[in-house]
Amino acid sequence: MPSPLETILNPRSIAFYGANAAVTTMGTTQLLEIIAAGYPGRIYPIHPSLDSVLGLKAYKSVKDVPAGESIDLAFIVIPAKYVPGVLDECGQRGIKHAVVISAGFREIENQAANDALIEVTRKHGIRFIGPNCIGFYNRNISWVDPAERASKAINTTWIPINPRNGGVSIASQSGTFACHIFLVTPRSNMGINKTISVGNEANIDLVDCLEYLEGDPTTRVIGLYIEEVKRGREFLRVASRVARTKPIVALYVGGTEAGARAGKSHTGALGGNDKVFDAACKQAGIVRAMNMEELLDFCYILDVAPVPPGDRVCILTNAGGPGVNMSDMVERVGMAVPVFSAELQQRLRDKIKIPTAQVRNIVDLTFDIDLELMYRTLPRMLLKSDECDGMLVYGIFGWTFFTMLEKQHPLVKVPVDDLKAIQVELLGHYAKLPHALGKPIIAVALAGREDGAVAILQDLGFPVFEMPHRAVKALWALNERRRALGRINRRGSSGAA
Amino acid sequence: MPSPLETILNPRSIAFYGANAAVTTMGTTQLLEIIAAGYPGRIYPIHPSLDSVLGLKAYKSVKDVPAGESIDLAFIVIPAKYVPGVLDECGQRGIKHAVVISAGFREIENQAANDALIEVTRKHGIRFIGPNCIGFYNRNISWVDPAERASKAINTTWIPINPRNGGVSIASQSGTFACHIFLVTPRSNMGINKTISVGNEANIDLVDCLEYLEGDPTTRVIGLYIEEVKRGREFLRVASRVARTKPIVALYVGGTEAGARAGKSHTGALGGNDKVFDAACKQAGIVRAMNMEELLDFCYILDVAPVPPGDRVCILTNAGGPGVNMSDMVERVGMAVPVFSAELQQRLRDKIKIPTAQVRNIVDLTFDIDLELMYRTLPRMLLKSDECDGMLVYGIFGWTFFTMLEKQHPLVKVPVDDLKAIQVELLGHYAKLPHALGKPIIAVALAGREDGAVAILQDLGFPVFEMPHRAVKALWALNERRRALGRINRRGSSGAA
Repeated sequence: MPSPLETILNPRSIAFYGANAAVTTMGTTQLLEIIAAGYPGRIYPIHPSLDSVLGLKAYKSVKDVPAGESIDLAFIVIPAKYVPGVLDECGQRGIKHAVVISAGFREIENQAANDALIEVTRKHGIRFIGPNCIGFYNRNISWVDPAERASKAINTTWIPINPRNGGVSIASQSGTFACHIFLVTPRSNMGINKTISVGNEANIDLVDCLEYLEGDPTTRVIGLYIEEVKRGREFLRVASRVARTKPIVALYVGGTEAGARAGKSHTGALGGNDKVFDAACKQAGIVRAMNMEELLDFCYILDVAPVPPGDRVCILTNAGGPGVNMSDMVERVGMAVPVFSAELQQRLRDKIKIPTAQVRNIVDLTFDIDLELMYRTLPRMLLKSDECDGMLVYGIFGWTFFTMLEKQHPLVKVPVDDLKAIQVELLGHYAKLPHALGKPIIAVALAGREDGAVAILQDLGFPVFEMPHRAVKALWALNERRRALGRINRRGSSGAA
Repeated sequence: MPSPLETILNPRSIAFYGANAAVTTMGTTQLLEIIAAGYPGRIYPIHPSLDSVLGLKAYKSVKDVPAGESIDLAFIVIPAKYVPGVLDECGQRGIKHAVVISAGFREIENQAANDALIEVTRKHGIRFIGPNCIGFYNRNISWVDPAERASKAINTTWIPINPRNGGVSIASQSGTFACHIFLVTPRSNMGINKTISVGNEANIDLVDCLEYLEGDPTTRVIGLYIEEVKRGREFLRVASRVARTKPIVALYVGGTEAGARAGKSHTGALGGNDKVFDAACKQAGIVRAMNMEELLDFCYILDVAPVPPGDRVCILTNAGGPGVNMSDMVERVGMAVPVFSAELQQRLRDKIKIPTAQVRNIVDLTFDIDLELMYRTLPRMLLKSDECDGMLVYGIFGWTFFTMLEKQHPLVKVPVDDLKAIQVELLGHYAKLPHALGKPIIAVALAGREDGAVAILQDLGFPVFEMPHRAVKALWALNERRRALGRINRRGSSGAA
């Protein structure tokens, strides 16, 4: 049986309840975003008095929409008390899928409203996400030609940003994690495939999302924001299966007493024990994130970088402090920064030729800007050496720095265009190294995307983080995925024996 | 006896060794920055063959500088083997202070070079920072009128950015932490007062820096980046004294085996045990940071926010997820999110009037944009209630959001100018609340400074972080400072008894 989410996330037509002419209301903003993101289907605004909404012909009721025009999805942003009536009307019109944005149900202990919602949707066999959710985002509408997906997304949230397309899909018990994150992802140009805000999960829950995303051909990594695991056994069974083929990253905030109590007020969720969740993650092969940034960073890295073959890390830097700092953190997260063999140290020395450079465990070029060394010779030598499984890099400095220097003194002339041309060529090769060699390279650049070289790398799908600890934790997440796959494979082979 | 750092960081004249016409060399870049940041003293470039460097008259030797012109500081960026000779010449010219940028001493086990350096500086009584350092940054030159300090800083590093002026001074065994951080601080408009890169600490070390910054009238918070604590007993004694009047934040990366090994290659440092350092921090009243971001965030918050009177946190949000998420994290860091009294809950309900709002422990306004409530009524009610000691806020959204909406659809008209005017007025009052009420408010806005309201708040010295966990950890740092002050005061009174 196909997932109801297939229709909900890829509707060819939407009946929209709750938009009018006031842009500061939630419904109007959401309809605005649906139009602005380039939704290619038909939209039928339903409004008791207006003839048109945001330039679209409006109808008094779905019953007024000509019978020949099929409606895939009802999108509802009206006060809770009107929701059951509207869903009844939709059911009579043959609509089998809905998104209920409206709040005021279980999360405020309004049992009557909740019962009425359940009753009417059961009666008509309507599957829905929500209530008390923000809807969804889908950058890869299944019936749109892949070549056109850049301009034809569906964004039902109220954040007016289309993130870059990518392999990461997020299912969340918080609407914020399904849309406010679009304010953050552009900083690393992280790609997003879909987000689903499940709200109170009165009908469709996170387990349904996992099953849907498991089969979604464009989703490569699944992120979860969890306040409460509702169908514990099912969750564990499905997550264990999905993790065989797609990495799952989970942020669970219901493990502490304060988190659980707060969750109950938010979506009516009852949190469980933190250690139980930790053990479940390990069993299912889920990588656990401890905050919003980690959830995004871990999903991002698992989408763009190869899983390392082991836990030995080498560090290439042109500044001592960040190298030492990352080395310390690598050991803190349980990975290793082994001392190189004498033979490798000698080969590094032969290439580097800088008396103050370090080659023992961290390769520190000190103040050197030999780009050929930094982007080609050393990464290849180190990653092909069989002495490390992944690499952390500090010291991506593009031509932006030289542009700044030029502005400072009339006598300063830097061949910026030449530098840029050299970097662009080298960076193109550099960005391909991780997948070519089967080992991750994760870079750190404090300047972020303001630096031209950083922007180029990120746009090529090469991970560059703004802070050293984020790169270390991202590498840890890749290593956790390697360990999870190891456990899965051992279970698989023992099961077959 | 005045600290030698007083002259080194506030020189009226500098003899500069190692700049020429090639901008990509370290020395030239550094001289360029000294000029660009607006150094108001005299500069004497010393060069064996050039008549002028970057437009400044150059001298073959300091001996050629007219005898009547005093030179406060020698700044040296030349190969290690020439450094002792140059310092001998400087000593003969009566120069008593130096900055030695040159590398190639203890960190590469070049004992002979190190001995020669020590010998010549002892002979002339020269005090210096380095070798193997990046110099310093001083936004508050003591002999410059405070009104002119905005345009008259001294930046000897190679990062072409002048951060905002502030109370935070950083002393660091890594040059990166003394200058690359300028690439990061503009994101929160964090203020920097001074940074000192101590390099190998052959003469002046972190303890000297602590003593100097203790007496520096414009420094309010001291940040330390440590690979090795060299004079352990002195460090503990001085830090304990300084922490009585100024908060100290330390990032120590020599505690793990990998970190210690890497540090040895970097500055020749030998790291010690992590737990020993942890205990020392507690004893001295130092707040410990675990990564670069925490070092900066903790210094920033201790500079701009009041220390909370206790560890009870309230959370005000207009989005459920971040509220629950922060609540969970507050408990994880050992602080509390107590349930409000029935009386306070009722008072909150009376004001909020949104049926779906939560007031039990997190105040969740859901999708509400009543700015008066968010910025004035509720913060005052909560912080004056005697039921919480500090506040975390999610949901700073300025007019930038509405500007984005306007661009999306020709029919959308938002009174952006009116909204902006209202916010600017309210934010001005809001930013004063923490110090007026003696309780910190720390906000989170995923959009960062791209949002107009965030930029205004940050420019008023009100802390807004880009991620929820950073706000929680910043509040934790303030609470650690409270606890440290409590221990200091108890010791003080028992000592007096």
